[in-house]
Amino acid sequence: MSAVAASALHGAEALAQAPALRPSPTVGAAPARVALLGTGTVGGAVLARLGGWRGGPLDGRLRLVHVANSRRAAADADGIVPEHAASALAAADQRSSLDDVADALAGGSGARVVIDATASEAVAERHAQWLAQGIHVVTACKIGQGTTLARWRAIREACASGGAGYGDSATVGAGLPLLRSLRELQAGGDRIHAVAGVLSGSLAWLFNHYDGMRPFSALVRQARDAGYTEPDPRDDLSGEDVRRKLLILARAAGVALEAGEVEVASLVPPELAILSREGVDAALPALDAPLRERYAQAYKNGERLRFIARLERAADGRVVAQVGLQSLPGDHPLAGGAGTDNKVAIWSDRYRAQPLAIQGPGAGAEVTAAGLLDDVLRLAG
Amino acid sequence: MSAVAASALHGAEALAQAPALRPSPTVGAAPARVALLGTGTVGGAVLARLGGWRGGPLDGRLRLVHVANSRRAAADADGIVPEHAASALAAADQRSSLDDVADALAGGSGARVVIDATASEAVAERHAQWLAQGIHVVTACKIGQGTTLARWRAIREACASGGAGYGDSATVGAGLPLLRSLRELQAGGDRIHAVAGVLSGSLAWLFNHYDGMRPFSALVRQARDAGYTEPDPRDDLSGEDVRRKLLILARAAGVALEAGEVEVASLVPPELAILSREGVDAALPALDAPLRERYAQAYKNGERLRFIARLERAADGRVVAQVGLQSLPGDHPLAGGAGTDNKVAIWSDRYRAQPLAIQGPGAGAEVTAAGLLDDVLRLAG
Repeated sequence: MSAVAASALHGAEALAQAPALRPSPTVGAAPARVALLGTGTVGGAVLARLGGWRGGPLDGRLRLVHVANSRRAAADADGIVPEHAASALAAADQRSSLDDVADALAGGSGARVVIDATASEAVAERHAQWLAQGIHVVTACKIGQGTTLARWRAIREACASGGAGYGDSATVGAGLPLLRSLRELQAGGDRIHAVAGVLSGSLAWLFNHYDGMRPFSALVRQARDAGYTEPDPRDDLSGEDVRRKLLILARAAGVALEAGEVEVASLVPPELAILSREGVDAALPALDAPLRERYAQAYKNGERLRFIARLERAADGRVVAQVGLQSLPGDHPLAGGAGTDNKVAIWSDRYRAQPLAIQGPGAGAEVTAAGLLDDVLRLAG
Repeated sequence: MSAVAASALHGAEALAQAPALRPSPTVGAAPARVALLGTGTVGGAVLARLGGWRGGPLDGRLRLVHVANSRRAAADADGIVPEHAASALAAADQRSSLDDVADALAGGSGARVVIDATASEAVAERHAQWLAQGIHVVTACKIGQGTTLARWRAIREACASGGAGYGDSATVGAGLPLLRSLRELQAGGDRIHAVAGVLSGSLAWLFNHYDGMRPFSALVRQARDAGYTEPDPRDDLSGEDVRRKLLILARAAGVALEAGEVEVASLVPPELAILSREGVDAALPALDAPLRERYAQAYKNGERLRFIARLERAADGRVVAQVGLQSLPGDHPLAGGAGTDNKVAIWSDRYRAQPLAIQGPGAGAEVTAAGLLDDVLRLAG
């Protein structure tokens, strides 16, 4: 293998030189000016990945000019060093206001991009407004495209009127090429017939690990502490997070679904659903008995529990859109996967019998941040 | 579901109106002028798909101005009706010459594209020349990028000097988003660590169907007659087709591999390898005994035979590149799939533990033609 090792070392060098050895590339266009909203686990991972670009081929492509969380904001037209963003925020006397974002991005000739790493309704409400101003919006938040059809349409129209792009790769599958594949199939003339899959990294993780012995509630706490679930795990267990993802996929597939048109079978028992967020953790064991029973039934049949989202469009246009726990044979295409893997199967004109199937990690701060920055680079051109 | 059916019907209409009901769209740019080389099963499927666009959203995007097979050529600057291409060729008195292709594409302001639907060395030799002239090349033929590193580099340099694009989606996975995913991960700053998969639709089909009872040679004939294998099935069984695909993937992943640096374990016994193409069919049963034995061994271990290509790059740059038949546990990620499914797993900076896995039909005229036309549309802009 020595010849291979030699040439491969050469090949590898081309991609993986140590930053210190690599000259800073000359960047053609002016750097895109970026505002990062949200400095939690995902926002923090965005900052870490940006810092890792220094000295590499992407160095200088983006300039971070505004960083904000729900309380404070820091701005610097010359660029904020990603590693210093946290301390800059802590030292900032500027109160955080969404009214300041557009101004912070103004000036210069490069593209302007807002990265929404929040789960904020207030921020999602601004997406269309920024887009109409010609500011690209890149988001991991599903509230923009995954709630009402009216807001989804407002975002599409704002993109057209402002000539801006909406980066949504991180809203479904944490950057896996799911939405892109749906759009590329249609751009090539295909009609989407059906989409089915495991769309929740947290629920995937839970049911990949649940063995009927350890209480399900203990796994839920572990997933939440690992950052796999939303801050309130009921957003995952209720299927509402998956409903939003299926709505985003369906709309990208050309099916104008309203939120209420997706049939969702929640895992959250009524006594847990009515609690305030503070009371949830103590009440999680209410999940244990019913799921132990469903697991035992599936086990008896040699099957596996998977939380599945399904969109099927018949030739006559009739649509079925459903979300819920299903018991699948072990060799079912959607029964596989591990960890937080999402898995999506797409049927279209060219994939009538065997679908295009895409699988991979669908949750976690690192992949989500990478998906966000992929979109920023695509939109910044 | 009536509300769903109603809105979905609406959504579906948006994508799937009957051609007669849909007004011909106004195309912004001038149509791209296209030359189709090769009118066999793949070329025929390209013509069929082009014809299917009439009255749809892609109507008018491309103009077929030149069609040729190895014997004859037909040209019409005003456009050849895809359904009439075969008869136009039959009636053509023009001898086919690759020297005429660039002239046939000249004139007009739209993009110029050559679609290579041949398996011709002579055509592959022209790729770099056309690219250097600013003519996009879209190909299903692996000879251009999958043979010597020198030719691969010549194509890359010609793209840069001519400002033209090279559409290679159909060379690996018949249009599955494999090369695109490798490139997008790197564009986002990731380094590719490893790639492994089933890259031959024909070998996937053979080992998905082989049960140790029916002679393997009979399956080979069936796959060849279905158009899954290359004209000479030894090109598949020898692993040479997979070697080319692994070279294309490796080079797209930044590893400058020479053809000889891939270790290939051929399925073709020496007595079959030395025969002329005419003698092959009668001698195919030479495959049966050794494969029956390997199947029996795998079956005894509860495993499955899969023809696997593997590229691994260690952090120190050392590379392993191997192609051959492997016996895999039934639950191995690469043991699944059906029909002619290709399946590829990609490990990178963001996908260190669990890979990004992409699976789907990786052979057949229809998906290959769709992959070719996807690239034409992308390049024609």
